[in-house]
Amino acid sequence: MEAILNYGGLNISDEIDLKKTALIIVDPQNDFLSEEGVVWDLVGEGVKETKVVEHLVELKAAAKEAGIPVFYSPHYYSDEEFKSWSHLNPIDKLMFDRKMFRKGGWGADFHPKLKPDDNTIVLSPHKALSNFWTGDIGIQLRQRNVNTIILAGMSANLCVESHLRDAIESGFDVLVVKDATTGPGPEATQAAYTNYGLIASEVVTTDDVVERFKK
Amino acid sequence: MEAILNYGGLNISDEIDLKKTALIIVDPQNDFLSEEGVVWDLVGEGVKETKVVEHLVELKAAAKEAGIPVFYSPHYYSDEEFKSWSHLNPIDKLMFDRKMFRKGGWGADFHPKLKPDDNTIVLSPHKALSNFWTGDIGIQLRQRNVNTIILAGMSANLCVESHLRDAIESGFDVLVVKDATTGPGPEATQAAYTNYGLIASEVVTTDDVVERFKK
Amino acid sequence: MEAILNYGGLNISDEIDLKKTALIIVDPQNDFLSEEGVVWDLVGEGVKETKVVEHLVELKAAAKEAGIPVFYSPHYYSDEEFKSWSHLNPIDKLMFDRKMFRKGGWGADFHPKLKPDDNTIVLSPHKALSNFWTGDIGIQLRQRNVNTIILAGMSANLCVESHLRDAIESGFDVLVVKDATTGPGPEATQAAYTNYGLIASEVVTTDDVVERFKK
Amino acid sequence: MEAILNYGGLNISDEIDLKKTALIIVDPQNDFLSEEGVVWDLVGEGVKETKVVEHLVELKAAAKEAGIPVFYSPHYYSDEEFKSWSHLNPIDKLMFDRKMFRKGGWGADFHPKLKPDDNTIVLSPHKALSNFWTGDIGIQLRQRNVNTIILAGMSANLCVESHLRDAIESGFDVLVVKDATTGPGPEATQAAYTNYGLIASEVVTTDDVVERFKK
Repeated sequence: MEAILNYGGLNISDEIDLKKTALIIVDPQNDFLSEEGVVWDLVGEGVKETKVVEHLVELKAAAKEAGIPVFYSPHYYSDEEFKSWSHLNPIDKLMFDRKMFRKGGWGADFHPKLKPDDNTIVLSPHKALSNFWTGDIGIQLRQRNVNTIILAGMSANLCVESHLRDAIESGFDVLVVKDATTGPGPEATQAAYTNYGLIASEVVTTDDVVERFKK
Repeated sequence: MEAILNYGGLNISDEIDLKKTALIIVDPQNDFLSEEGVVWDLVGEGVKETKVVEHLVELKAAAKEAGIPVFYSPHYYSDEEFKSWSHLNPIDKLMFDRKMFRKGGWGADFHPKLKPDDNTIVLSPHKALSNFWTGDIGIQLRQRNVNTIILAGMSANLCVESHLRDAIESGFDVLVVKDATTGPGPEATQAAYTNYGLIASEVVTTDDVVERFKK
Repeated sequence: MEAILNYGGLNISDEIDLKKTALIIVDPQNDFLSEEGVVWDLVGEGVKETKVVEHLVELKAAAKEAGIPVFYSPHYYSDEEFKSWSHLNPIDKLMFDRKMFRKGGWGADFHPKLKPDDNTIVLSPHKALSNFWTGDIGIQLRQRNVNTIILAGMSANLCVESHLRDAIESGFDVLVVKDATTGPGPEATQAAYTNYGLIASEVVTTDDVVERFKK
Repeated sequence: MEAILNYGGLNISDEIDLKKTALIIVDPQNDFLSEEGVVWDLVGEGVKETKVVEHLVELKAAAKEAGIPVFYSPHYYSDEEFKSWSHLNPIDKLMFDRKMFRKGGWGADFHPKLKPDDNTIVLSPHKALSNFWTGDIGIQLRQRNVNTIILAGMSANLCVESHLRDAIESGFDVLVVKDATTGPGPEATQAAYTNYGLIASEVVTTDDVVERFKK
């Protein structure tokens, strides 16, 4: 097993063209990142231990400094959707029962330290796990000649991992920032890490990215 | 964590309409399922312990008996692709180094106990992890009025999980057969199980499915 | 040629299940449908002659009366997009030069007679021609068990036709309402009609649909 | 109308990077291009008058000479599909009634003057009108760093136009070669030309492309 998990050992950071790179932050919203968020009981410990908010703040600032655009891929549901969707899987059911990401509500709003600024492009929301299926991420990146994605945000094994998988299918290079994400519990985070090691072009840390952005 | 992993507790097996159901088997090919396959060192132990081949044979026979179509989603690469693809992630790199799923070769052929029969529809191959991005699975299912997928095959956290995620994004109900798949090592299998519990409409066993198909 | 244009002669209206049907209206916005809209010089004559607004109003009312959901697929651009998109085709160039569908502006707003009501679901905007690529139409329809689309709106050979083509690729049955759409000039409208005859499951009129919805 | 049809006046040929360019030929198969093909009665006159075969042969040779890869996007149906697909639109119905593109048959084979050579990559077949929905075109192009497509083949307003629309949605620049395609009759060809003028990055001729490839 070790064999395959260490197989890649890819290191593409130094080769990437920063002019064709974007930082994508998935779901930087209160319901995930604030103590009053509706799933804080599930992700809060990981968010604090991994310093997810602090790392996202660092990444966002470093990207801006380097002239690299930041894209937010948010997650919203309307009351009408809470009422009428009829094919919920377990994670949908959890979100729907708790009215997570309720459009217009506080929980769906961006974390106070992660408000969009003039370097932030807010994508159309994703409605299941990936913006590549239900949002505008593909065209927005291609129209700006992006071919490399730095990926971070919430949660590790669900929306972030789905964005990763679809970005790879779409032909992007993807570097996942492992200390700028976490899952709903250690087992979920570990699942994400295992899969990142196989699927991401490279797995990096916030420090790696900040360092790279300075060059 | 337990909270969320057991959250769903969905049980949709009894409600599914067998006339609108299909069995999808991902990558039932020698390189994964036969002892001479090029990644047997990585998956072999799991394949044997979980009895993946035996369970796939059972599922396939039960589906045929019940008049439920079986779709194979295979994985092929040509020599030209081995040579010219330029954005390999670690799992691609592993496959390419080992010339896995080499089109026309023995490794890409279906396992001897899982040869297609008159109830099997072989889809166009997927080229990264999911047939929904690079094959014809969507139209083939919709043209036959399928809305529920029973999903099995190889490997658990890579192609099977990507098929699962994309099927959910496409609006299908998906039941994953957890003992008819395995990953490259216990950690990878565990990652898949963790994610199935959150994303699949229901996680089932071969026995569950065979039983259900009899009704 | 006549041969192929009349080939289909499909007539599926009577077979459709109204419980699984939705009305999709593409771009019912001022820039297309109001006299002050930025492309009224190109589409205005067609909109008036074909009575597009009147027919859309009729269709919307009939759908509501019949309990059939109405989905709006709008088109928006932000100032940031006007500035940063770098791969414009001619139709993009036209829209960008005229600041068409400028988000938050009057031109992007819905026509006064076509304001959303409690039977209207407004989809995420499409960013090129089709919501299937850049919006959430697929999941929104599947989550509500829709398998048949009644398609209308603007403009005939551009966004409406792209929605038609992608809906067919996605496995929906699609009835296009030919007198509830028009193109930028008679040649464009004729192009759309020619293609609808080959690609749509059935080409219908507003009267056909209203009649059918009463059953 | 003239206004909009001539609006673009885009001329990107001279700016394209030939190292990132591919020639895509849609459906260069006997059923379309040979006198015994099953729809020769519908397209034959256009194929002869426009010299579609001759132009495709020229384009293919010029691409090879210039080191530009040629991708074929073929169209196949199996007997099982002819039997089991249940949502046919008029063009499907025509193809299915005539057993067009029957897999393994002569009609589905490539035209004798357009056999694949060592510079040709044959994509997985498309199953409705576009390879972007049911084949592997996206990943194959991105893995080879292609961002500009020269598009030609059959038929003008159906598969070629759908490839065009989806390529644009996917963020490619697309130059359509108007004299290396034709539709099922003059009205269909005209519909395609009208739409190309609005949607393609540029509309070019075989001579334009051959000239450009020499630079």
